[in-house]
Amino acid sequence: MTGSTTTPFSAADHEARMERAARAAADAGLAGLLVAPGPDMVWLTGYTPTAVTERLTLLVLAPGQDPVLVVPTLEAPDAEHSAAGEALTLRDWTDGKDPYAVTAELLDGGGRYGISDNTWAMHVLGLQRTLPGSSYAALTDALPMLRAVKDAAEVELLAAAGAAADAAFEEIREVTFAGRRESDIGRDLAALLRRFGHSQVDFTIVGSGPNGANPHHEVGDRVIRRGDMVVLDFGGLKDGYGSDTTRTVHVGEPTEEERRVHDIVREAQEAGYQAVRPGVACQEVDRAAREVITEAGYGEYFIHRTGHGIGVTTHEPPYMIEGEELPLVPGMCFSVEPGIYLPGRFGVRIEDIVTVTEDGGRRLNNTGREMVIVD
Amino acid sequence: MTGSTTTPFSAADHEARMERAARAAADAGLAGLLVAPGPDMVWLTGYTPTAVTERLTLLVLAPGQDPVLVVPTLEAPDAEHSAAGEALTLRDWTDGKDPYAVTAELLDGGGRYGISDNTWAMHVLGLQRTLPGSSYAALTDALPMLRAVKDAAEVELLAAAGAAADAAFEEIREVTFAGRRESDIGRDLAALLRRFGHSQVDFTIVGSGPNGANPHHEVGDRVIRRGDMVVLDFGGLKDGYGSDTTRTVHVGEPTEEERRVHDIVREAQEAGYQAVRPGVACQEVDRAAREVITEAGYGEYFIHRTGHGIGVTTHEPPYMIEGEELPLVPGMCFSVEPGIYLPGRFGVRIEDIVTVTEDGGRRLNNTGREMVIVD
Repeated sequence: MTGSTTTPFSAADHEARMERAARAAADAGLAGLLVAPGPDMVWLTGYTPTAVTERLTLLVLAPGQDPVLVVPTLEAPDAEHSAAGEALTLRDWTDGKDPYAVTAELLDGGGRYGISDNTWAMHVLGLQRTLPGSSYAALTDALPMLRAVKDAAEVELLAAAGAAADAAFEEIREVTFAGRRESDIGRDLAALLRRFGHSQVDFTIVGSGPNGANPHHEVGDRVIRRGDMVVLDFGGLKDGYGSDTTRTVHVGEPTEEERRVHDIVREAQEAGYQAVRPGVACQEVDRAAREVITEAGYGEYFIHRTGHGIGVTTHEPPYMIEGEELPLVPGMCFSVEPGIYLPGRFGVRIEDIVTVTEDGGRRLNNTGREMVIVD
Repeated sequence: MTGSTTTPFSAADHEARMERAARAAADAGLAGLLVAPGPDMVWLTGYTPTAVTERLTLLVLAPGQDPVLVVPTLEAPDAEHSAAGEALTLRDWTDGKDPYAVTAELLDGGGRYGISDNTWAMHVLGLQRTLPGSSYAALTDALPMLRAVKDAAEVELLAAAGAAADAAFEEIREVTFAGRRESDIGRDLAALLRRFGHSQVDFTIVGSGPNGANPHHEVGDRVIRRGDMVVLDFGGLKDGYGSDTTRTVHVGEPTEEERRVHDIVREAQEAGYQAVRPGVACQEVDRAAREVITEAGYGEYFIHRTGHGIGVTTHEPPYMIEGEELPLVPGMCFSVEPGIYLPGRFGVRIEDIVTVTEDGGRRLNNTGREMVIVD
């Protein structure tokens, strides 16, 4: 179970991705890419160390060079069996050696490198100390399109994960909410995601009544009551690709205001979706959704960005947010999830994963977006 | 369940730790400490964000200043409810703002800061970009003693976690090994750790036969057979503090060589333990254990350091390794875990957590270290 890829991609697929990444680095004027364990490494090599520790594991990709994986000696056997194992040259270092000196031998001392966003600070500082002439840029700043633009196979894996999350929603809407704790519904959701093929559940947010007004509330012990609005936001990984969808249900008959707020969010989510097409800046998706909510007088209660990318993680660039001028490109996949949060009262959020196609957006979540009444 | 501490420490305890950390920073000539989500933040504040994302959450500790937690606006409600919430001033930033500019307002533009080892590279690079005159050192390099030296309450929590792991071993030695998969034994171990009070299981290594020769092998589908040596290395968190112990058992009667190798490792582990006393350098513990194995002619098969620290994580500084001249101090807690790994054949490792007392070492694992024969 260690060192194995969780995605259905082959060694050849991973080799092609590493070549593409090295070429992109060269085109961006970088000397190469330094990739730490995490989503970038999974995407490029399929390799995940048993645990991420202070021991340096770093993939070095440079144009015209074979990929080299700097790895602790005792983790080398696992790395050899990773999906990209045969395409990687392992450069192992044993406890007590200086891993930064080992890595420095592979680098251009005066070069600028893109480095995985989540690389540990101690490693960046170690490289800066060892190679004072080198410089570093966060990988997603340097190559924002590298993982953001999915190929057809990846989009279909995301679609399958989305369909599984939709199937989970169609079942959860049938269970009894009134009288049960948020944590009970959360457990139901996690079990459903697994039943429909998820290998990993990343979050099961159940925000009932006032808890729904905290966008990051997960689940608590609050007992759900008739008359509660309940935000259900859940997702995880299926075959190595992510799902993330939100529907807001109501226990029993909603009030006029609850209906109105839900309608506004639904209209905003539709507007964000309709704004999706190639060439449009990410911020335009945010603006389209936000305008609807602002026009309706609830602008101050939409307290987060409209969306985030999704791929081998459930949360990654690109971000649908004011100021993000990155243009949408066919193959990008991200959430469109506006919300209105009324402190101490209730919240409403509606979220679909959307992928950019040549002629607009395609939703990867397709359950109804009208308010669902539950028991 | 978000933003809550997993340790039994109070707001006052966390406040005292933050004060101590700020003083230590000043004594080390640092302008302050920057602490990212993870073990340092848990230890200092009890706060754990719902998820660690690219959104910057950073604790700023500076001598003579109140602690400030830079936090995304939508996570502020959780942070307010953390154990140290009342001792923290929250400085929240909303999506679209530059979190590094917000943080920079709290920093001395020409100062040197200690920053959590595991802080994301994108954040260090963001701070370096925003404050070109500032400089950074990995927290464990700058203040190696800060979390490494535990107080009495922490040592007793580690002792309780160790006792729970020991109880798990006493039960696992009674189960049937022959004919079952490593993964079955691993599941048994995880269930036992939970039964004896662990809230989190970090690893359950079951290395049977040749798999035991890979120190980082976790569990596989290999069916354990009579005649197998089996390395059992397991641990996790109980009341927020770690356990980590290893015993090597044999299914049925061992060979002469298996007995000899096990005896050598046991003697090495005892030698490492006996070397523990205040003032001795960490590397002396490694040397003491390694000498026994080298003398016996197996030096090349002891392919990792002798130990690592443990606390709110199961793996942290200090490291018992050649070159580590940090002196042992009463309150330090770490593993002493020599091993011999014969490629393609079998491995043996014996591990106890040991704490430094005024007059030597105290073992926090106390199950027998002689070879246990299982069925």
